[in-house]
Amino acid sequence: MPKITKPTLLINKNTCRTNIKKMADKAQQKNVLFRPHFKTHQSLAVANLFKEQGVTKITVSSVEMASYFANNGWNNITIAFPINILEIDEINTLAEKITLNIIIESIDIIPFLNDHLRTKVSAFLKIDTGYHRTGIDASNLQEINILINELKTSNTLQFLGFLVHSGNSYQAKNVDEIKNIHNDSLEKLAVLKNLYPDALYSIGDTPSCSVVENFEGIDEIRPGNFVYYDAMQLQIGSCKLNDIAAVMACPVVAKHPERNEIVIYGGAVHFSKEKIDDKYLGKHYGLLIKKNNTGNWEFIPNAYLNKLSQEHGIIHCSAELISATNIGDIMYFIPIHSCLTANLMKQNTLFV
Amino acid sequence: MPKITKPTLLINKNTCRTNIKKMADKAQQKNVLFRPHFKTHQSLAVANLFKEQGVTKITVSSVEMASYFANNGWNNITIAFPINILEIDEINTLAEKITLNIIIESIDIIPFLNDHLRTKVSAFLKIDTGYHRTGIDASNLQEINILINELKTSNTLQFLGFLVHSGNSYQAKNVDEIKNIHNDSLEKLAVLKNLYPDALYSIGDTPSCSVVENFEGIDEIRPGNFVYYDAMQLQIGSCKLNDIAAVMACPVVAKHPERNEIVIYGGAVHFSKEKIDDKYLGKHYGLLIKKNNTGNWEFIPNAYLNKLSQEHGIIHCSAELISATNIGDIMYFIPIHSCLTANLMKQNTLFV
Repeated sequence: MPKITKPTLLINKNTCRTNIKKMADKAQQKNVLFRPHFKTHQSLAVANLFKEQGVTKITVSSVEMASYFANNGWNNITIAFPINILEIDEINTLAEKITLNIIIESIDIIPFLNDHLRTKVSAFLKIDTGYHRTGIDASNLQEINILINELKTSNTLQFLGFLVHSGNSYQAKNVDEIKNIHNDSLEKLAVLKNLYPDALYSIGDTPSCSVVENFEGIDEIRPGNFVYYDAMQLQIGSCKLNDIAAVMACPVVAKHPERNEIVIYGGAVHFSKEKIDDKYLGKHYGLLIKKNNTGNWEFIPNAYLNKLSQEHGIIHCSAELISATNIGDIMYFIPIHSCLTANLMKQNTLFV
Repeated sequence: MPKITKPTLLINKNTCRTNIKKMADKAQQKNVLFRPHFKTHQSLAVANLFKEQGVTKITVSSVEMASYFANNGWNNITIAFPINILEIDEINTLAEKITLNIIIESIDIIPFLNDHLRTKVSAFLKIDTGYHRTGIDASNLQEINILINELKTSNTLQFLGFLVHSGNSYQAKNVDEIKNIHNDSLEKLAVLKNLYPDALYSIGDTPSCSVVENFEGIDEIRPGNFVYYDAMQLQIGSCKLNDIAAVMACPVVAKHPERNEIVIYGGAVHFSKEKIDDKYLGKHYGLLIKKNNTGNWEFIPNAYLNKLSQEHGIIHCSAELISATNIGDIMYFIPIHSCLTANLMKQNTLFV
């Protein structure tokens, strides 16, 4: 491994492979299409690990990301984001080149798309089963019906099915809460399935896809974060510590034993300012880990990133850890939200 | 102006020029060197606006940033971050090329620097006057004296002076609190000035540099954020709305009048997850603004970024604003912390 001299995101390829294989196997067992979300890694190297597992259809969250992967050989992409009509030129270019699925939730934009799309494009209706970020409420059958009829008369849009993201599972405190949120989604989608049996049903959050076994009525899953996992997923109960494939490595630059602090080179422009509220540690920006004798990660007890400014990170930890640490040492962290950390660390990622 | 189709950071060059000129004039009046911090913009175009005002000496917060500006013609740089000894090779390369000032706060690393620095480098001692992020406590005269003596016997390091960053001013609630923090710093530095009258005294936070008039005993100021300002500085009282030079422009992609929400394309990977707690609006990630008849920005009342996920932003606002807004419209925001937003938006910045 090259010497680490500055904040570096270490991606463990084998852990990624294990995470991908587990999810791909689960999809196969449950007879659902595995269309992973690539927004977490945005990396061609990680994309290749998916290819190894036979993945050919993917999800992204922006036209920019779709263009990036389309330009690198991926030719079946769902942009799981309410279509941004201002990017119609890029969307047309993409749709002429690859199989592109878009997301619609508003009837207002269908005339614009009818006028401006140059190629037939498949569209999912975005359905809200409880997250309340985007989508038509699953119980609003009237609006759903009007939209589907509108799509049926369109020359450019083809109704494909219903797409849900139960992002509310990220607020879950344990596996039972994840399952409740997931089952609630399935029940709401079952109502639609009675009305539209031929539609595709696509769901996608990492917590549900990681822990549930029941995918009744579902045709496709789109998890993304699971390839790396992170402190948030660990807290929710989606993964264990050694399932986490993305670890931050940062140099120690100062020590302040008088206030139980170590200063690292590694701040908000490396980790992001995402934080979680831990039952024991309080609010923090990342957890300290170290390799044990067996080569696995283990937590350093009561050691966490307490404050972040642009380039500085302030670790709160024990006097013993401070004594045992020298300026110039490298310390290791699991990030709170690996999607945001990986986005910031694109130029400083090392595959190990 | 080119058509905006995705999240874009608009930088108003004239507002930057005004902010720079005001700070440069103040520095001249107060007889202090103006050594602006370039971490906020990290941009050669903005750097040129500083050059127009005669700036030749700058501050950065990483070796990487120092190399970037050194490779683009800037030859007098202070890296205002505790020196990261792991980057000794890059530091040596820089020190042979430009006038480089580094920051030291720990005696432990001086033997390493004596052994490894190839060129004489000037060093500031980092002094803590109350922020408690890094630095030797200003009252710890014994440690300061030991370190200075150590520097005096070094063949490679030359003691230059004392460097303070009163980042605690970012917690100020009003101008009086900023002034109190600043005056407290000055008093602590005055004690050092009696002992070390020939040292340079460098201070740097945007709130203090923006609002105080008393720079007694100070030789150099290093503000950075003031070139753009942001919602945080507005809340503290460092600036007015139309002093803010960095504005985010984002497309509307969905509307949810049933919960007073507009969804924009613009999320945590564009704004950053920095938030502030507003007395009236509560916690938020950005404030909505619009141009008025005179061409100035004004606030849209009670409209703010309430939630951010990776690419989505959720605006909370009035029913009237939702009715008046169409999918495909562009909405404008002042970011919470322009340094973090500008860092994320490097590839999508438009100078206006």
